[in-house]
Amino acid sequence: MYPKSVNNLIEALKYFPGIGEKSAERMALHVLGMEKEQAEFLAHSIQDVKAKIKHCQICNNISESDTCLICNDSLRNPDYICVVEDPKSIISIEKLGIYHGYYHVLNGLISTLDGINPENIRLDKLIKRIEDGKFKEVIIAVKPCLEGEMTALYISNVLSGMNVIVSRLASGIPMGADMEYIDPMTLEKAFDNRKNIGK
Amino acid sequence: MYPKSVNNLIEALKYFPGIGEKSAERMALHVLGMEKEQAEFLAHSIQDVKAKIKHCQICNNISESDTCLICNDSLRNPDYICVVEDPKSIISIEKLGIYHGYYHVLNGLISTLDGINPENIRLDKLIKRIEDGKFKEVIIAVKPCLEGEMTALYISNVLSGMNVIVSRLASGIPMGADMEYIDPMTLEKAFDNRKNIGK
Repeated sequence: MYPKSVNNLIEALKYFPGIGEKSAERMALHVLGMEKEQAEFLAHSIQDVKAKIKHCQICNNISESDTCLICNDSLRNPDYICVVEDPKSIISIEKLGIYHGYYHVLNGLISTLDGINPENIRLDKLIKRIEDGKFKEVIIAVKPCLEGEMTALYISNVLSGMNVIVSRLASGIPMGADMEYIDPMTLEKAFDNRKNIGK
Repeated sequence: MYPKSVNNLIEALKYFPGIGEKSAERMALHVLGMEKEQAEFLAHSIQDVKAKIKHCQICNNISESDTCLICNDSLRNPDYICVVEDPKSIISIEKLGIYHGYYHVLNGLISTLDGINPENIRLDKLIKRIEDGKFKEVIIAVKPCLEGEMTALYISNVLSGMNVIVSRLASGIPMGADMEYIDPMTLEKAFDNRKNIGK
């Protein structure tokens, strides 16, 4: 019904997760109304990202050079390595400003159901970095779900023989949450991990 | 925090309506994971649309040629012209398959609050088409809101002297709606426009 070029754009916009026919249609028509410079900037940014971005050879983070800005930063604390599941997690943690160690980005999480095994998520690279023996603590910061737990367990098993502390971010009730809406698994974790606050 | 090319893409994606920082970030990272061909297709589709799409010289609909497919279609019913506020409305109506006349796309709706006057929405072109005298009925199919009502009223006033029927799509309770959730304005319209179904 639309001219061919508009239909093409609608199809292309549907590549994005969560963008269906209706949203893609609205976005495509929005492109029509954009300033020419804006549309050019958008198109070039897409091409630019594909041309320039690679994975850091040390930690797998996204980077425009062979090694990323964090791995290149000699002022970071060499005692800590934080294991995350994607580059977005690094941004969230960096925004906090409380962690100053290095990172390692996995390529997803172990999921036996989806056939994702330890060798699929670049765990060998992580293990090699820890074998090199400079880190004192490995902080596992993957999300607390079945796959996250499995991945954390696997990593701690593999590293158990090495001279390194393996820790996992605490699970529990998020700040400001209403007790009646907490899901049972979170509440159970909160009980298991309860902290002694008396003397 | 992200490499420059990723930040550029995040900024560019925020041009879309309803896309904030978080969504743009997720979409940009999705582009990183796309096949190179997909990303190229997306970027080219954006450029293509900007290069090829113009407005139909007759009805203002979007088109790759000077006049759109509908205006060029001599099999359509020349008695009717349907006035819509954007090209998307044409698609919705065409999907129904019950209307076979021509269209006229306004450039928005009259809104005294936003300073959008009749001359801003290409009403002169519509009036000229009707003055030419071939249409028997002008069907106003803009959405029922303050601006829509104002636009419909203005058009019917301007056309009142001409030998043409001016009609407006019915407002009322949508099919399947629950009576208790109907807003008062819609309910009032439904009362005003009630239909005699007795003999």
